[in-house]
Amino acid sequence: MMQEILDLINENKFSQVRDKLTEMNVVDIAQILEELERDKVLIVFRILPKDISADVFSYISREQQAYIIESITDKEISNIVNELFLDDTIDFIEELPASVVKKVLKNTDKDKRNFINQILKYPENSAGSIMTIEFVDLKKEMTIKEALEHVRKTGVDKETIDTCYVIDGHRKLEGVISIRKLILSDEDELVKDVMHTNLIHINTLDDQETAADTFKKYDFLTMPVVDKEKRLVGIITIDDIVDIIEQENTEDFHKMAGMEPSEEEYLKTSPFKLAKHRIVWLLVLMVSATFTGNIIRRFEDVLQSVVILTSFIPMLMDTGGNAGSQSSTLIIRSLALGEVKLNDIFKVIRKELSVSILAGSVLSIVNFLRIYYLEGIAFNVSLTVSITLLFTVILAKLVGGILPILAKKIKVDPAIMASPLITTIVDASALILYFSVASWILNI
Amino acid sequence: MMQEILDLINENKFSQVRDKLTEMNVVDIAQILEELERDKVLIVFRILPKDISADVFSYISREQQAYIIESITDKEISNIVNELFLDDTIDFIEELPASVVKKVLKNTDKDKRNFINQILKYPENSAGSIMTIEFVDLKKEMTIKEALEHVRKTGVDKETIDTCYVIDGHRKLEGVISIRKLILSDEDELVKDVMHTNLIHINTLDDQETAADTFKKYDFLTMPVVDKEKRLVGIITIDDIVDIIEQENTEDFHKMAGMEPSEEEYLKTSPFKLAKHRIVWLLVLMVSATFTGNIIRRFEDVLQSVVILTSFIPMLMDTGGNAGSQSSTLIIRSLALGEVKLNDIFKVIRKELSVSILAGSVLSIVNFLRIYYLEGIAFNVSLTVSITLLFTVILAKLVGGILPILAKKIKVDPAIMASPLITTIVDASALILYFSVASWILNI
Repeated sequence: MMQEILDLINENKFSQVRDKLTEMNVVDIAQILEELERDKVLIVFRILPKDISADVFSYISREQQAYIIESITDKEISNIVNELFLDDTIDFIEELPASVVKKVLKNTDKDKRNFINQILKYPENSAGSIMTIEFVDLKKEMTIKEALEHVRKTGVDKETIDTCYVIDGHRKLEGVISIRKLILSDEDELVKDVMHTNLIHINTLDDQETAADTFKKYDFLTMPVVDKEKRLVGIITIDDIVDIIEQENTEDFHKMAGMEPSEEEYLKTSPFKLAKHRIVWLLVLMVSATFTGNIIRRFEDVLQSVVILTSFIPMLMDTGGNAGSQSSTLIIRSLALGEVKLNDIFKVIRKELSVSILAGSVLSIVNFLRIYYLEGIAFNVSLTVSITLLFTVILAKLVGGILPILAKKIKVDPAIMASPLITTIVDASALILYFSVASWILNI
Repeated sequence: MMQEILDLINENKFSQVRDKLTEMNVVDIAQILEELERDKVLIVFRILPKDISADVFSYISREQQAYIIESITDKEISNIVNELFLDDTIDFIEELPASVVKKVLKNTDKDKRNFINQILKYPENSAGSIMTIEFVDLKKEMTIKEALEHVRKTGVDKETIDTCYVIDGHRKLEGVISIRKLILSDEDELVKDVMHTNLIHINTLDDQETAADTFKKYDFLTMPVVDKEKRLVGIITIDDIVDIIEQENTEDFHKMAGMEPSEEEYLKTSPFKLAKHRIVWLLVLMVSATFTGNIIRRFEDVLQSVVILTSFIPMLMDTGGNAGSQSSTLIIRSLALGEVKLNDIFKVIRKELSVSILAGSVLSIVNFLRIYYLEGIAFNVSLTVSITLLFTVILAKLVGGILPILAKKIKVDPAIMASPLITTIVDASALILYFSVASWILNI
């Protein structure tokens, strides 16, 4: 299908292209535009029917959006902006170069421009910044018939009519009613008798992550956003929430690998920026690994008298690091999903203690059998390594389990208490353990 | 609010409790039930109005569901099951003990039981297993007025009426039409003239992850599920997709930390099960860390002639591991989001090469300055360590960038090419590099 259309475009058979495209989903049309060379992009974009072209516009990349806006006439811009939903307009305005934004705002009608400016004022990542103001509002005194009539009259420009909002004269939110309820109710009933009044809403300044958590908790499709005076100012829809959920997950993945989170796509980010995002933690961790060096230097005589001990340092450190990051990952994720709360810390300690004794014992025994019988390492040394391994695993899992919860307690993002940091902490402790056990068992 | 109701329950003021509860969201009522002791759970559950109690039932924990089903009468079970949406019924049937399931199925009417059995046959995590069959179907010859009439008559039992599906006599899917379109269109128009015919659907046996990706791509709220003969058998709704997205993310987090993924909540999982999920990778990685031990033993003479070299091993290994897992995490996540494709491998190599030279040089220079000037390490040794560091970072980032893509190419989940595995691979290479550079610069 895709290839067929690309071929038609290259053969300049545009009327056939138009017929094919109008039958396709706008997301797929946007994808085709991404594949085209610049001169073709404009031609194809212009042959799309007006209502489709605005929709397609909201799905193409920022680069293409900027290019199209720069190339088309003011009248065409005005057509697109008037067809676009407000939240999509804001999405691209926030990320485009100033010159392009200016051209867009110049061709937006005054009302819409005011709304845009108003929403742009909300802080980044706040509920206000992701809401749309295109919703259906009803009055509670309306009959169902009047309400449906109102939906019919005003619904065409709204982002969703699935949920309608009942407000009073001061725009205070009084109730919500689904289109389903409107359709299935008797036409003579009053809105106020059918609407839901147990209202779960979010404030304009709340974080978008809070909004996402509330959507997940209540299985919402839309949620009202109110200002400080509890006036309804907008709604958030689930499609934007799905994006936010993925964005928050990506941030956690990045932080947990010791990087500054970034919303930009990997392939579109410059090497300088990528390096900048990664270097800070690498530097911090490299410098803090100095501890391990100092510990080794302090116990140099131990290592010199039993040289073979050195060769087990990497295995002990790696296993400790891996055991610790398993625990920290589980706890960080459970905290993010709300499955583990701050006051569960003792339950976590108890559980990690049991798990680490179980896992540590198995590892320790397997390791002993392997190095004593297979590799022929001396009994005392094998014992030293295996005992250290057991305690390292226990320690690593406790540290991995506790640190993320403590971080959250002091309002630091638990995600930074992940693998890289745990590894560095556990390494130092593992070495001290190792040398202490060695001094004790080997009498050095 | 919560506390107030808990107090009322403890004072046995149940009529007040009932009034309060009926004004609340079902999710919050479910949360209150979780906090109660068992004898109170049943009382409170029974005072809820019938339509609310089924909804609440779908939000309480599996343990509570099993307890309630075991304790209530057959008639009450039958009421709940008939009020429940089919997909919620299936959700809990899949996870409850057999005895409870038997009691539920015995009290389900025949039609519904047949549907349940049919859906239970779809493989776990397939689109079929998460769909619901409660949707509105229309015929294309209907007028809008007739269609709306049909929605009104049949809509009350449907999970959603936001999208209606147009099917022919053989249940083949011919089009979709949103309730919005139905309401905003002229009543005399025909469904076939208004419906969308560019149909994006999924097959019953497709993976739920594919379903989630399609939802994200097209911003859908619902999607039709068809069988091999293209007959419409069910629909998937966005609320289930949001859960699946989070579940898939959790799986990735677990795999990336070297654990078998688990859907169970951490605090509800036994230590044995937790240990079992973690031990396999710990064992594999521990045994493969033998390499590093062997490398050290092979170069024992190098270490003995310049003892100080030992003390930098942890720092080199940690920094290499961290640098590598940054890259692998970025690439694994980009692959999961579809931002990096298999044929981008050379772009990734080029980018990681630039980034690693940038980041590696900074780290290397900082490290040289620190150990030569601050710690007073000999010039040649400082140089050895810093040069090794640069090449370790380059190597780590290349390995971290390439392995996940290669994994995907041979259809292995890229998520297992994460931190623990990369660390183990990079450690061995870093040591070989270290000793080679040392032999060269220090002439050992």
